[in-house]
Order: sequence, then structure tokens, then C-alpha cells
Amino acid sequence: MISSPHNQHLKTIRKLQDKRHRERTGLFAAEGEDLVDAAGRAGLEAELVLVAEVDVEPELLDAVSTLGSGTRVVGVFRQRFADPGGALSVWLEGVADPGNVGTIIRSAHAFADGPVVLGPGCADPYGPKAVRASMGSIFARPPARAAFEALAGTTVALASGTGAELSEVELVEPVTLCLGAERGGLSPEVLEGASAQARIATRPDGPDSLNVAMAAAVSLHECAHRMAAHA
Amino acid sequence: MISSPHNQHLKTIRKLQDKRHRERTGLFAAEGEDLVDAAGRAGLEAELVLVAEVDVEPELLDAVSTLGSGTRVVGVFRQRFADPGGALSVWLEGVADPGNVGTIIRSAHAFADGPVVLGPGCADPYGPKAVRASMGSIFARPPARAAFEALAGTTVALASGTGAELSEVELVEPVTLCLGAERGGLSPEVLEGASAQARIATRPDGPDSLNVAMAAAVSLHECAHRMAAHA
Repeated sequence: MISSPHNQHLKTIRKLQDKRHRERTGLFAAEGEDLVDAAGRAGLEAELVLVAEVDVEPELLDAVSTLGSGTRVVGVFRQRFADPGGALSVWLEGVADPGNVGTIIRSAHAFADGPVVLGPGCADPYGPKAVRASMGSIFARPPARAAFEALAGTTVALASGTGAELSEVELVEPVTLCLGAERGGLSPEVLEGASAQARIATRPDGPDSLNVAMAAAVSLHECAHRMAAHA
Repeated sequence: MISSPHNQHLKTIRKLQDKRHRERTGLFAAEGEDLVDAAGRAGLEAELVLVAEVDVEPELLDAVSTLGSGTRVVGVFRQRFADPGGALSVWLEGVADPGNVGTIIRSAHAFADGPVVLGPGCADPYGPKAVRASMGSIFARPPARAAFEALAGTTVALASGTGAELSEVELVEPVTLCLGAERGGLSPEVLEGASAQARIATRPDGPDSLNVAMAAAVSLHECAHRMAAHA
């Protein structure tokens, strides 16, 4: 039973809150039974698992937790990255909020066969907030990394207020939905380089734009539904 | 210029972080220019607005902010509640996470003409996290409160894994989409009492369930699209 805060395993977990340490080691931490269970279901072996009261004194584990309420279990896993691909996938540009990145990884897990592909300026998908927001989908569906230019097939640039309605856009597989952050949106290069620009139809008296995680969920669901109907 | 932390206005703002104080006074605070601007666009007059460096010393305003980064402006507004109604609306049960409540208020603003109707066990829509997550939609579309039994028209109970696919469910206006929290789901009374049970089609290798805010966005978008096509 670990009873010293200077224990090497605890230090490892704490250091993995730091992005540079995650990059240097290629590891990340997942907190809580749900996430550690999700890793198991995805067939992943942990590099390290610490369970409160079994492996470590509970207050020491709480002290290295990023959760305000502390945690009963922490697993350390090796980061994995997929290749871009699939009949339907998502590419993100400048989505710097880790909660949005994690939520979109989860939505893609629900609706798409391809991964979430991270372009420039995106949050680290293996940071604690992103991992938590993915609700374990990061294990089942590791993200990919690629520049826009590397995408193959139909690229649909989602933008507020411009382009055709998404429901009118032709979807020739493979399809990649391209989304930018709510404020900044996609860069001009992507808007011009994409196969099509599309917008999600919202009410005229609705908000000016949609949160990127909402836009991703809605557009993934719509495209998945249309592509299944034509399959 | 307010220069004392004991100023009555600052105390009011701080106290409004407390749900009981919000209930007692019928007021709430909105932090940040975007939210205060959204109130103005919705035609709402503030009970009180404090602008850093104009009305108050910046560090004193930061001290009563719920944002880690502090804020430049805080407005205090009167809470408003709408009546249930509209051709399309949402009813929530047990959605205790304020971020989800606020996000759903925003999605309803984007896709529905009716309000978000709060059933039992939901977070206060006027708490700081909910207001922030609504991105100002709480001003344009104040929520309603009602028991399930009070809903009129077609009630569609969204549930994971049971019922028909939402795309197959007949939508006779007015339609209320009923959603529960991801874990607890809807109560048996609601599942049995609803006009129809429906599920959002997800991949067989996808996650077991959807976050309630994602489910709300996807189902609102789908129903709005179908109802517009038949209008």
C-alpha cells in the first residue's frame, strides 16, 4: 500500500496533468472507474492502475486527481493515434477547448466509423478534460492527426450562415466533416479548399452560431443517417 | 467608482451565486460582455450592471466573479419563466448538470420554437454555469417549468436502446421531446405515459448511451427538419 506522497507512481500520475510530460512519455491518465472500465472493454492494458485502499491510501490518490471530488481509481495508459479514414469522419481546426474535443470524440464514436482527425490548434485529446468528456470513447476510437491537405475524398466545411444546407450537400464517400471553433471558424484555406461548404439549418430567430460540439453531433448524426439510407 | 468590497451591489452579485438567494430574489447574474450583450439584444433591461474601471475597481469585480479568469462586466437581471408551448419543445427530467441544462436551452433556441421545460430534479437554469452554457439563449428563450402530466400533444420519450428509431416516430404537433439524465434516464411513469418511446440510432459498436445535451441537439435538429419538411 502506497503511503508516501513521494511515491514514483503518484508522481507519474501528477506529472501527466502536464501536456509536455504527456508528449514526452506518450502516456496519459484516466481517472475514475468508468474510464478505466472503458479501457478494459476496448481491450487496452494499463501501464499502471492504482485503486484507493487497495494500492494506495485514498487521500494520496485524491491529491493527484484533477477531479474536485477526488477519485477511487486512476489508470495510466499509452496514447494511441489512428490513421484518418472511414466512410465518415470529422476533422477539427482550432478547437482549443478540451471538453469540446472529448465530446466530439464521443459523438464520432456514436455516429461515424472514422476517427476524429485533429488539425492545427486543437486541444490535446489526452488531457484530463478531453479524456473525461470522451466518456471512454477515446479508448474505443483513438483520434488521428492530419493537415487538411492530407484528407481524401469529400470534405464538407461546416460554417455558420454560408453555403448550402447540409441536407442538400452531396455525400460521396469517404466524407470528412470539417469544423472550426465557434468563434474563429475554419480558416479561409479550408473553406476554399473543401469540396463543399455547408451550414446546419437553424431558426431565423435562433442563435448566430452553434457550439462546435453541438454542430459536430448534429452533422454527424445527419450524415450517418443519410449515408446509411443510401448504403 | 466602487472601491469597497463591502459595497451593496457587489454583495448582491456574490449572493446570487447561491441558489436560495436567486430563488428568494428572483434575480440572477450574467457575467461577461457576451451575455450582457445578449440580454440587450433580447430587449431585457438589467436591474444592475457593473463595468470594470467604469463603475468598480476591476479586482473587486473579479472577486465576485464565478469565472476563474475574472470578468469585465456583470449584469443582474430578473429571472423569467415562459409557459410550455410551441410546435416543438423539450421537457427534461432529472438533468441535474447545469452545463447540460444551459446547452439544451441553446440547442432549443437554435432548432425549436418552444421552450425548454424543466421537470423534477433539474439544475437551476439561472445558476452561473447554466447561464454561461446557454451562451445568452436563456435571455432569448426563457425556460418553462411543468410536470410531465401537464404537457399537451405528442410526447416522445427518448431512451437508449428501446423504442422505435426517432426517424420512424410520427410527429403530430405539438411535439415535446422528453429527455432524462444520461445515467438515470426517464422515470418509468414518463416512459409509460409518453405518446411514443424513441431512440436515436447509433452505431452498434458505438457508446451505450449519449450525453443528454448531445441527444437533445440531435433529436431537436431531426424533428425540426422533419416538421419543416411537412409544414
